[in-house]
Amino acid sequence: MWAELIAVGSELLSWDKVETNSLYISKQLNLLGIDVRYKSIVGDIESDIEAILKISVDRSPLVIVTGGLGPTEDDLTRKAVSKALKRGLVLKEELLEKIRKRFESMGKAMPKNNERQALMPNKAVVIDNPIGTAPGFAIEHDKSLVICLPGVPAEMQRMFEEGAVPLIKKRIDASEAVKLRIIRTCGIAEAKLDEIIGDLYAIDKNIRIGLAADENGVDVRITASKGSEIETTRLSAELEEKITARLKDYIYGFDNEEMEGIVVRLLKEKGMKLSIAESCTGGLISKRITDVSGSSACFDRGIVSYSNESKVQLLKVPPKLLEEYGAVSSQAAMAMAEGVRRISNTELGIGVTGIAGPTGGTSEKPVGLVYIAVSEKGKEARCKGYNFAGSRDMIRMKASQFALDIIRRTLLNIQ
Amino acid sequence: MWAELIAVGSELLSWDKVETNSLYISKQLNLLGIDVRYKSIVGDIESDIEAILKISVDRSPLVIVTGGLGPTEDDLTRKAVSKALKRGLVLKEELLEKIRKRFESMGKAMPKNNERQALMPNKAVVIDNPIGTAPGFAIEHDKSLVICLPGVPAEMQRMFEEGAVPLIKKRIDASEAVKLRIIRTCGIAEAKLDEIIGDLYAIDKNIRIGLAADENGVDVRITASKGSEIETTRLSAELEEKITARLKDYIYGFDNEEMEGIVVRLLKEKGMKLSIAESCTGGLISKRITDVSGSSACFDRGIVSYSNESKVQLLKVPPKLLEEYGAVSSQAAMAMAEGVRRISNTELGIGVTGIAGPTGGTSEKPVGLVYIAVSEKGKEARCKGYNFAGSRDMIRMKASQFALDIIRRTLLNIQ
Repeated sequence: MWAELIAVGSELLSWDKVETNSLYISKQLNLLGIDVRYKSIVGDIESDIEAILKISVDRSPLVIVTGGLGPTEDDLTRKAVSKALKRGLVLKEELLEKIRKRFESMGKAMPKNNERQALMPNKAVVIDNPIGTAPGFAIEHDKSLVICLPGVPAEMQRMFEEGAVPLIKKRIDASEAVKLRIIRTCGIAEAKLDEIIGDLYAIDKNIRIGLAADENGVDVRITASKGSEIETTRLSAELEEKITARLKDYIYGFDNEEMEGIVVRLLKEKGMKLSIAESCTGGLISKRITDVSGSSACFDRGIVSYSNESKVQLLKVPPKLLEEYGAVSSQAAMAMAEGVRRISNTELGIGVTGIAGPTGGTSEKPVGLVYIAVSEKGKEARCKGYNFAGSRDMIRMKASQFALDIIRRTLLNIQ
Repeated sequence: MWAELIAVGSELLSWDKVETNSLYISKQLNLLGIDVRYKSIVGDIESDIEAILKISVDRSPLVIVTGGLGPTEDDLTRKAVSKALKRGLVLKEELLEKIRKRFESMGKAMPKNNERQALMPNKAVVIDNPIGTAPGFAIEHDKSLVICLPGVPAEMQRMFEEGAVPLIKKRIDASEAVKLRIIRTCGIAEAKLDEIIGDLYAIDKNIRIGLAADENGVDVRITASKGSEIETTRLSAELEEKITARLKDYIYGFDNEEMEGIVVRLLKEKGMKLSIAESCTGGLISKRITDVSGSSACFDRGIVSYSNESKVQLLKVPPKLLEEYGAVSSQAAMAMAEGVRRISNTELGIGVTGIAGPTGGTSEKPVGLVYIAVSEKGKEARCKGYNFAGSRDMIRMKASQFALDIIRRTLLNIQ
């Protein structure tokens, strides 16, 4: 079983819009054990949508279309499906009634345009939209299941979960159970990780292990499939245990957990507060912590000490230290961490300083050199130096991830 | 003339990887006046790549493929093109020599695998790779121009510019000149903007005007095409002038300029320094400013004053003021802006406080309420309140964009 995704919308073909619905869907499908084999984006041109649909149902057992279900002239998915699959459009009275009521509940009359949204290809199964006017639908066509959902992310996600997943599960229930488990690591290189767990790749023919690396670290993806749900889950858990025993502290989370979410959770569990002093990351670490809703319970303040004066004035870094070792040094990082912890009276302080590039590097202190220090109440500050590769963005991303990981390790008493 | 893009690589089908090469290419093509009509992503499966290629050359005059040109077994674009277009692969000796020399210059012997990269489909034009081993190539096939480039962004971009653009220009020179101009605005709603310039949409049949809105504001895209290059440029400039005269100060930039880049440029031009105090945006404004390489010349510090204590202690916001008006108030924002400007002794200070949600809102101070204040040396601080809609992420993005826009306006003496 595999899937193919089609996103409809001319705006998705412009250079400043990233198509993201497919990421959500891919993840949900992966977690059901279904691979995505093709992704296409097509504009609001009926014949283009029709052409892609014909190709898709011909080659893929599961086709998921997002977008083009709105009420305007530009919303052409219904028509294109009707033509591609040769099924007339039928007006569903009960659907029309629902849409009309939706408008009434907001004290409005339904615009004539919205009638269109009650049109469904013949023999389509309606997928309810509990938070918008655009209903979705599913069609069994030859050997394919075609599912059409609106492009608004919130509506699409809710409808995918509640309407599409049951239909997809019904189809895969007939076949083998599949389970995807993702083990997320930070601080270990892909090649090194490969060395440590490489012998497990071929341990069982019902298991597939893959590695995926980015600025946040390396993910280990285990896909297990062994007949029944119970057997598959057992096999996956067994392997997860083996890998976890080997990778230990490098593991920061599972599946879709993010480092910032884990750090905020740990801080809250311990009732501890964090403060951050950052230079080369320029606010990125604070931004990531505050991306987590509710982080105000454990995050006191961040100081982006870009100038030397700000390091001296706000963080009480001794000017002599900066003169002697430079602003990019382990000494400066430790003084920053300690300084921010003291002035904010928090249990934990982090100090980050480095050279993000592309300019500003020297042979002694090259672009990518970053020092990350942590200060705990009642303990000596500690610091580690790194040489990160990549663009300015990548260096900053990696530095923020390692800084968050050091907070995690500190909270868990891992060296 | 239009184009279709194909990205090759199994990793691009996973849920945590966004395909971004197509954004760069789309932009460059748009600036040449070429629309992208289809985008496809396909994994490292030879038959899948071959199948997509066949469909593409059949329907599109320009097909650009990225990825799959590396030296490993997994790099299948060469083979797939050879099969889809029915052209044998030929070993190019001079190419092999270049790759060998590239390795030699790094003091290494060329691995056997890399020989593959000197294989080219019959009658392909080689596109040189000045910074990597994977050469690209272009093929004229029936009515289509097929261009294959490696997937590594830095290599692809350089090769696109130097190798692909001349080939594409040769093809469009024969047809009509087309020019895309993008006018970027902030602070004006799409509907309002539509009202102001709506009468211009139909002013000339050789002009197409489109609006695209996101958290950063609304872009006006002008596509002009009127025979010769000179006529087209004149027509586009004429319309740009009309629109600029109407939208005036709402315009912050053109084409691919970003707000943070403009703010940094203006600060440098004026020899002024900026400091930032931010609460609900949690470091995002500082992060955006420091995204710009060289921003250290004009950015002194950022303070992420998440707790009330940090506002009092670092920014000298009077505790009484926080008690009386709350941390989310115009008074607090102004005190923050003034505080950070004073302690850092910069010419400009920005203060941002608000409720990013999803929790923490009240009926008086709902989620999305954000105050942005600016303090200039020798002047009274000013503040504006906003009610931003959307998710936590969107509210924070919008707040950061408006804050940067207020800095821009202040630097240009716009109210």
